[in-house]
This record gives sequence, C-alpha cells and structure tokens, in this order.
Amino acid sequence: MGLKDRRPPTPEEYLDYRKRFSNWGRWGADDQLGTLNFVSAEARRAAAGLVTEGRSISLARPIDTKPGPANPFPGHHFLAAGTSGGMLDYLGFFIHGFTNTHIDALCHLSTAEGRETYNGATTIGANGMPTNPHVGTIEHWKHGIVTRGVLYDIPRHRGAAYVEPGKPVHGWELADCAAAQGIEPAPGDAVLIRSGLDPYFEATGEVQSFGSAAGVHASAVEFLYETDASCLTWDFQDAPHDDQGIPNPMAEVPVPLHVHHLLLPYMGMPIIDNADFEELAVACAELGRWEFQFVVAPLLIDGGTGSPVNPLAVL
Amino acid sequence: MGLKDRRPPTPEEYLDYRKRFSNWGRWGADDQLGTLNFVSAEARRAAAGLVTEGRSISLARPIDTKPGPANPFPGHHFLAAGTSGGMLDYLGFFIHGFTNTHIDALCHLSTAEGRETYNGATTIGANGMPTNPHVGTIEHWKHGIVTRGVLYDIPRHRGAAYVEPGKPVHGWELADCAAAQGIEPAPGDAVLIRSGLDPYFEATGEVQSFGSAAGVHASAVEFLYETDASCLTWDFQDAPHDDQGIPNPMAEVPVPLHVHHLLLPYMGMPIIDNADFEELAVACAELGRWEFQFVVAPLLIDGGTGSPVNPLAVL
Amino acid sequence: MGLKDRRPPTPEEYLDYRKRFSNWGRWGADDQLGTLNFVSAEARRAAAGLVTEGRSISLARPIDTKPGPANPFPGHHFLAAGTSGGMLDYLGFFIHGFTNTHIDALCHLSTAEGRETYNGATTIGANGMPTNPHVGTIEHWKHGIVTRGVLYDIPRHRGAAYVEPGKPVHGWELADCAAAQGIEPAPGDAVLIRSGLDPYFEATGEVQSFGSAAGVHASAVEFLYETDASCLTWDFQDAPHDDQGIPNPMAEVPVPLHVHHLLLPYMGMPIIDNADFEELAVACAELGRWEFQFVVAPLLIDGGTGSPVNPLAVL
Amino acid sequence: MGLKDRRPPTPEEYLDYRKRFSNWGRWGADDQLGTLNFVSAEARRAAAGLVTEGRSISLARPIDTKPGPANPFPGHHFLAAGTSGGMLDYLGFFIHGFTNTHIDALCHLSTAEGRETYNGATTIGANGMPTNPHVGTIEHWKHGIVTRGVLYDIPRHRGAAYVEPGKPVHGWELADCAAAQGIEPAPGDAVLIRSGLDPYFEATGEVQSFGSAAGVHASAVEFLYETDASCLTWDFQDAPHDDQGIPNPMAEVPVPLHVHHLLLPYMGMPIIDNADFEELAVACAELGRWEFQFVVAPLLIDGGTGSPVNPLAVL
Repeated sequence: MGLKDRRPPTPEEYLDYRKRFSNWGRWGADDQLGTLNFVSAEARRAAAGLVTEGRSISLARPIDTKPGPANPFPGHHFLAAGTSGGMLDYLGFFIHGFTNTHIDALCHLSTAEGRETYNGATTIGANGMPTNPHVGTIEHWKHGIVTRGVLYDIPRHRGAAYVEPGKPVHGWELADCAAAQGIEPAPGDAVLIRSGLDPYFEATGEVQSFGSAAGVHASAVEFLYETDASCLTWDFQDAPHDDQGIPNPMAEVPVPLHVHHLLLPYMGMPIIDNADFEELAVACAELGRWEFQFVVAPLLIDGGTGSPVNPLAVL
Repeated sequence: MGLKDRRPPTPEEYLDYRKRFSNWGRWGADDQLGTLNFVSAEARRAAAGLVTEGRSISLARPIDTKPGPANPFPGHHFLAAGTSGGMLDYLGFFIHGFTNTHIDALCHLSTAEGRETYNGATTIGANGMPTNPHVGTIEHWKHGIVTRGVLYDIPRHRGAAYVEPGKPVHGWELADCAAAQGIEPAPGDAVLIRSGLDPYFEATGEVQSFGSAAGVHASAVEFLYETDASCLTWDFQDAPHDDQGIPNPMAEVPVPLHVHHLLLPYMGMPIIDNADFEELAVACAELGRWEFQFVVAPLLIDGGTGSPVNPLAVL
Repeated sequence: MGLKDRRPPTPEEYLDYRKRFSNWGRWGADDQLGTLNFVSAEARRAAAGLVTEGRSISLARPIDTKPGPANPFPGHHFLAAGTSGGMLDYLGFFIHGFTNTHIDALCHLSTAEGRETYNGATTIGANGMPTNPHVGTIEHWKHGIVTRGVLYDIPRHRGAAYVEPGKPVHGWELADCAAAQGIEPAPGDAVLIRSGLDPYFEATGEVQSFGSAAGVHASAVEFLYETDASCLTWDFQDAPHDDQGIPNPMAEVPVPLHVHHLLLPYMGMPIIDNADFEELAVACAELGRWEFQFVVAPLLIDGGTGSPVNPLAVL
Repeated sequence: MGLKDRRPPTPEEYLDYRKRFSNWGRWGADDQLGTLNFVSAEARRAAAGLVTEGRSISLARPIDTKPGPANPFPGHHFLAAGTSGGMLDYLGFFIHGFTNTHIDALCHLSTAEGRETYNGATTIGANGMPTNPHVGTIEHWKHGIVTRGVLYDIPRHRGAAYVEPGKPVHGWELADCAAAQGIEPAPGDAVLIRSGLDPYFEATGEVQSFGSAAGVHASAVEFLYETDASCLTWDFQDAPHDDQGIPNPMAEVPVPLHVHHLLLPYMGMPIIDNADFEELAVACAELGRWEFQFVVAPLLIDGGTGSPVNPLAVL
C-alpha cells in the first residue's frame, strides 16, 4: 500500500487506518499495555546487551516554568511562603502540551467515531478524562518501558540540520533511515524520531508556538504498525496540517493529531512527546550506531492521562 | 571501629563521622555528583549484564493525594474547571515527605556547623533552598542513575516479617546480609535497604505517621562509605530517635535524620526515600538472587531539591 | 407548625420543608439571586443608616494553610522558587470546608430527589459542579450583599460561653433572641448566628474536626424562611447528626447538612460558612445593639461554586 | 510647586518626592495603616450617608484564568481528578499583575535606597517578600476600607472615550475634575481614577500587554498627598515610561512604577489595581454625582503582599 509505494495515504486510505492498524482485541479484552505487549522478556534481555559503552543520556527537557505561546500554562516550582507549611519545594504542571517531556497514556485520546479509548474499554467524558478512571490510565505502566531504542536521525539521513516545514517525515523514509543506519527494525522497538527541534529554532530564530513547526506525517503510522514497534518518542510531533494533506481527524482540536489520533485509541501505542535528542544524536553519530537500551519510568499517577518522564538511552 | 566491632557509634564517634565519612574535595571543587562518581562506565556495563530474566519491577509508590498524618500536604491531581484552560490534568506535589517516592538532591540538607551543602559549595538559606540555586540541585543528575542495585532484604535475613521498632538495621547487619545473599558489595552499588514498611502497617494496623516507625541506624553510614556505594534507596528511613541512641544531628527538625544528615551534606550520597520493595523482594527470593540493573531518572527540575522518581529494578 | 409549637420538625415535617420552604419560581425562571431578592434598595438605604459609630469589624478567619482534621487539604501561600516566574506570592485553596470563611453559591448543593439546583435550573454532575457552568454560580453575586446584618448571639442569650453539643440552636430560639436583643426581623436581613466556635475550642481543648461540634438545628430553616431573611452567616454550621434527630438529607455525605440542604437548592439562600463573630459580639454587647450594615463581596470566579470572603459589619 | 504650576515634576523634584511625600513616623513607629489612618469614624459615618439610591456596584474584574501577554501566569480554577480528594473547586492565582483586581499591601514595594518598606519597619528580601513577615502585610487591613469613594472620571472630564497614550492623567487634572464634578476632596477619600481601560481596548483592538497602555502620571502623587486621600484605585495604572518623562524609580523592573513606587514605601498608601469602573461611570453620569460609600475587604492572608478584592461602590 502506501509504504511500499512511497506515497502518503489518500484521505480514504487514512480513514481506513482506523481499522487497518487497530489492535483492539489483539491482546484480550482487559489489555492495558497495547503495543507494549511487543516488549518481550527476550527484547529486554537483548536491549541490555546493547550497553557496551556504559553511558547514559537523558532525552528529557526541563520542566518548563516559563510562559510563552508554546507553554500558555507554565509549570510551577514553588516554596511555601511565610507561615504556610509544606515539605520544601512544590512542583506542579499540566501533564500535556508542547514543552514538558511526557508520556501519553492510552486514555489520552479517543476514537473519532465514539469517544472510545483503546480496546473500546471506556469512553472519554466532556472533561477529557476517561469515564472509567482506571482504564487506559498511566498507572498500568508502572513497571516502565525497558527495551531497545532506535534513533531515527532524519536530519542526518537527509543531510540537513532539521526537518523543514513542508517536508514531513514519511513512513518509507523511516525504513530508508533504518537501512542506512544498519538497523533491522524488531518487535518491541522504541522508535525515536528526531526532527531536530532545537536546531530548527536556533536556525530560524522563530518563537515556538503551540504545535509543531515541522514533524512526522501520518504515513509513519504504517511503519510503526508493520514493524511491531512498542512506542514512539519524538521531538517535533505530528507535522502541521499543511504538511499532512489530509483532514485533521479531530476537527475540534486546533493542533494536528494525524499520528497521535491513530496511535493512542486505535493502535494502542504509547507516545513520549517533546524529547530532546541532541546529545544522543551526537553520541550515536560518533559511535556509528543508533541502537541502545531505552528506559522510561512513568510516575504512578492513579487515573492520570500521562506522566512527565525523563527517558534514558543507555549505550 | 564500629563496623568491625559490631557496635553502634558513641555520640562522639558519630560526631566524628562528619569528618571521617566526608567526601568534600574528593572529586574536585566543582563536583556535583558526589558518590555517583563511583558509577563507572564499567559499573554500568556490568549492571546491564544482570538483565537475564528480562523483567522490570517498579519500586515506586503512587503519588499520594490523600491527607493523613504521614501526608499533611497531599499532592494534587486536578482538572481545569469550566472555562479555565489547561492542558488536561494537572499534577502537583511537595517533593519531600514520607509517602511519595522521591530522590533527595545533595542540596536538600546542610551541615550542622555552617549551613553548608556538600563540598562546601553553597549554603542553605532560611527558606531551605540553596543560596546558589544551581549547586547541589537535581538537574545535575539528569542522565540518571544506572548501576547495579543490591536488595538488602533485612526482614528475610532476620526471618521476620519486618524490621521492628527497637531493632534498627545496623551497618554490620548489611555486611552479614550481603554475605548471606551471596553478594560482594562493589563500588557504585545502589544499596536498597528493605525494612518491610507495608508488612509493618498491615501487621500492626497502625496509621503511618510523619516519620519512620522503624528503620536504619546511623551505624549503616560506615558500611555505605566503606563499600563505595553510589546511593541509598529505602522504604523506612532513619530509625526513630529511641533506636538511634545518639542525639538527632539537626535538633530543630522533628524527624530523625541520623543517616540523612551524614549522607547528603558530608558524604554527598543521593537518597531515594519511600520506595516500595515488596514485589521486588518476592521476585528476588524466587530467583535466589538479589542483584539487578537499577535505573532512576529524576525529572529535570532546574534548582530543585529533589524529584519524584519511579526507580526500576531490571532483572 | 414547628416554630409556633417550639418543637423541632418530625422527619415527615422535615421532608415536607422541601416544598414548604421552596422558592422555586418565586422570582422567575431565570432568577440567580434567590433570597437576595429580599435586599431591596430600601433595605440597603436603611442598613447604611445603622452606621453610627463609624467602625468596621471583619468577620473572617484567615486563609488556613495548616493541615489538620478540619483542614485536610490546606490552602497554599507560595512563592516562585529560583528561576520559576510568577507575580510575587501565589494563593491557592479549596473554596469549601470547615476553616476558610467562604460563601456558598446556590449551585453548591442539589436537591435530594433529582440532583437539581435552585429553581430547577440545572443539575449537579458527578464531579459536584453544575452541568450548566453559569447557573447558580458565584459570579451572579458580583455586586455583593449589602444589607442589614443582625447578630443572633446565642451563647449570650443563653448565658453560656458557647452552644453545647446536644443543645442545638432552634428556630424559636432565634425569635426569642431577636426579641431579647430588641430586634424586629425584617425582609432582607442577613442573619448571623453565633454559636461561639472559638470559645468552644478554647474551653474544651478539643481539636476541630471536619464537621461542626455543635450548631444550628434544621428547625431554624422555618425562621429564616418566615422572616424573609436574605442570607445566613454562622460560625458553627449544621448541628451534628445526634442533635438533629432526623436523618441526614444527603445520606452519602459524611457531614450533617440538615440546614445547608434546605437553604441552597430549595430556598435559594446564600450561606457564609466559618465566620468569626468574637470581636463583633464584644462590640455589640458594649453598644447594646445587634444590628449594623453588613457587606460581603465575593470574588468574581466564573463558574465558581462559592468564594472566599471577608464579611464586614459596619456599626 | 508642581501642582499649582500645572506642570509635571522635574527628575530632581520627583526624586525629592521621596522626602516630601513621606509619611514615615507620622502615625508612630508601629503603624501598619499608613494613609488608611485618614479614614476616621466620622469619615465612615459620612460615607454611609451617601447611600441614597440603595445600589451596589462591583468594581472588580473576574479572576483571570486565561493566558496572554497581560497574564503570563494564569489563575487556576481546578477540580480534583478521579481519586484525588479536595473540597470541591480549587482556586489559585498570583496576587499581583495586570488583570486580577487586587490590593497591594505596603510591603509590596521597597524604597529605592535601602530596600526598606513603609516606615522603615522592615526590608524586602531577594525573594520580594518582607524579611519580617508580619510587617506591612495584608492581614493588618482585615477590617477593610470603608470610606467615601470619589470617582475621577477622566475620559468624561476630557470629553474623550479613554485616556490616550501620550496624555497621562496629571495631578492638577484631578483637581480640575473634582471641581467639575462638584466634589471637594476630603481627608480619608478613596480616590478612584478612571482612564477607561475597557473602552481603550475596544476602540483600538490592541491586545493587553504586561503594563498599562496609558494611565496616571507621577504628578498625581502630590494631589493624593495634599488631599489626605486614604487609598488609590485605578483601571490603568502608572502611565508608560514615555508618558512620564522621568526615569523609572526601580530601574530593574520592566514596568513603570512612577506612582506605585512613591505611594507604597514612602507615603504608605494602599493601591487597588485593575479595577473595572465602567458600570459605575455610567451610574455616576446618570445620577450626576461621583461620590459614594466605598468598601474593600481584603482576604486574611497572613504575611500576604496583597489580596484579590471585589471593591464595592454603594450609592
């Protein structure tokens, strides 16, 4: 189909993704892991075998307490004033958005048809939370994601500094990039797609807005599905509307969700948003390898729609 | 001295710990890692080699949003009401205390003599924060702690359900427990001391208070220092005043800090408080081994005195 | 009925209060003022005429930032830490509870029968908020309550230091107290019922719990209705279950709501909880008069179920 | 001097304001009221006599939970999610800024010379809070401000829709406006200066920024001092830098504080920022009178640098 033909899905094909790439029922009616089911014990063992340098690299951005277009509701780092109590510093933040590095639980988005979450297990209420507060929520992933991570360094593959608006990352490009990097995609892989967010803002001098300036096309969904990937981590997220060429699946939401919308409610794939790959990209280029042990440990937030995280790449 | 003699320090010996177990200057004047310096590349490689089962186990408790004596300032899990905005759910909490699993940065406590932090690099102001907001703070550990973890399962070693009040965990008992578990303490080890917090409250029916009902004696400090451990993780923390038999080093603070007080400002050792070892303890007992890859990834909180964490044991 | 007979309502009579003291439809289908409709321009003018001393007295308690049984979710007085921004100090609190002085909007409670709010205008959702976020909410009272206040100083009337548990304030006692104080209840009156909360805790040494130790009986509802009062302000709230002798109208709620439950959804009467009358009581006794100008100005909280307030008595 | 000459102060004269308009020592060393001392019992009685219509009008804007240039740290209106507790809705906000209607306590700003607050009673620490947390703080005004309010409706006086940038409100213009409105300024007056904030933004279509687009010139300070005013309430605040023609007294602060800076630490005058006078202005014009009872009741925030308020004009 699209991936083999090296062309993006038509609007009709994209609509059909909802059935074609659905994992509903694949791991039973009570499944809470989605594509994390691909992370087998063997995958974890193999991933540990990649720790040859003995080096750990953070893929997180700092909790963002500065207001701006990309961060309209800044996080808080507080101290109790005067006679007010407290146990030293207080940290508060909205879980989602475009600056803090966080993981989306499967309940974060619903199907377009029925406001249902992954596996049809519950629906999303008007307040954006699951009507069953323990279905698709983050506490089910308390044991973390520990698997092989593969960095798809698209700017390097393109010989560019960053992914430009108008040139989104396509599914077949991920396949090309893997081959060029000497990687065979394997079940359970954590797919890390680098678009080069920081180089983009450094080069253009633009102010980050609430949405991705460039990023990943919906055609990547097929690649993630066909390779049995366990989760997606990225810096820029879904490419802008103009780059997608197909209608936004959640018309009421002002940001493009062409990839998000397929992965969470249909495919059941965790997404780690707003990663920082710059240090890792340098290290991978120096070492000439783009695979490593990948570890993400969400906080235990009962009923949470996600969690802030500090993903680690251990090389 | 104390450890060899299998006896706790006298008040004088305990005072002398401040010099004897100090690491000030050991890794240079600008050091921000403290005993994490013991985690070498080789230690990380060796730790990865322990992943033979391919199983990951969380050591964290849930973010605690319920008020009570142990949690006087409950965490918040909020939604924006009505017309107020926000990026879905908001999470807020004080970093320290006795319920949330969190890591203490080195700036969290100061010396008794001069309100100085580790390495003498800054002082703690009246508000409890470092006067230099980027010294000893948590963002210096953004690349996480990835090393061998060793579970010291004291109740199992004692043949008891939990560590009782009046019978604190002593340094020489850690040495005994290691030997019994077939472990040779090694530089860079993450030391995990299980006292059995949950079994204690289940058995006694007590309500958890703001402080540990039982726990670890100051004599353990010598063990941590002499074995070149990299960090300490525990469920119950410093044993109660009555169990210590020596004055609380920070008289103005109502909780015992006999161990905390030596590790943070003098030794420069990170502490992960309020862990949950129950699932790990069962797994270790079944497998007959108490070592594993240990991973902790603090959030990037600029100037933070610590971070909530979800430590993972990967077996 | 009960008031003339000087006896509390039977459970059947109390159930009938829902109809007997309902003001649904009285001021039109779109009414948002409830019994504040009794505050006429003439009532405001007359109240201003009571300002003869030129003295203003606060009836508020401090925003409570200390945890305890009566305040399980303490308010916050915060400062931004380190590099986090902010516009100096931050104040945060839950609007309701038993310590902060606050006003209840009409949407704060629903009928027992249908989860409807005053006037049947909307219902209360599972989250406790009105399903129509601008019905019965606090912003409708932005112009404040400015009317005659009358202090019903029950302990003084009884010759006691405080209202004791087991001896709740009854409706006919309010009538007696008014007469003894030389007051003729008038339409639009703000009724202030003093039970003597602070003297109670000073004398008994008890720790305040989440609920009133003593307080006002459901029989007072008739008095409030028959005298065309505009609002109720009190220190202790609804008398305890044992003092009421009739079932709690909202069985699922652990605190007695025998008065609250009638006033808000049926009668449409604002309630100002957790007032401090001690300074006012002394002033009234000295002056030998218990009427004054009463001013309450809620904050403009769009969609709020109430607001913190600092009510003033101007004598 | 300046007021008689109808010309703004020179930079030298403006510097001299710090001495000339200082009230340090005027009401004793322990004074916490500042110019509120001018509100005598007689002033309160006289103010009550102005309540002839029996009408109350709010002068507050809603608590602003929307982000934007004027509100970079939006207020919060929260509900507890899922299993997290709480007493219904939570309200949180920074006290200061350019959108929420709030009162500044005397500790909010310090002298330029010594970081001292009004009366030299304490200093302001690096965190912006008084080093003595109960000096100059808001809880001292718990009994509220109840006095005559006078609306200085400058746009009406000018025959304009609003005060334009480049044409700030000068002290002599306040005197002119009073005369035109038939008002004799009296000791204890609450001075309300309307620049027409809402009409300005409606007419220009500009987005409100963090600072006043137009407003009051430093020359108004002399008028406030010479007339023994008790407090200042305004919609636009200090006129922009370009309108002042004299250096900003607090060079490190990016907003003009030419009036704020004199009133708080030197004169000891409370300021109520971000009022909404539009409904009041219409009522005053209809009635042909610009005086009324003015009531402001700050919340009791121990150690607070101010409080959100809903000021009322009672006509």
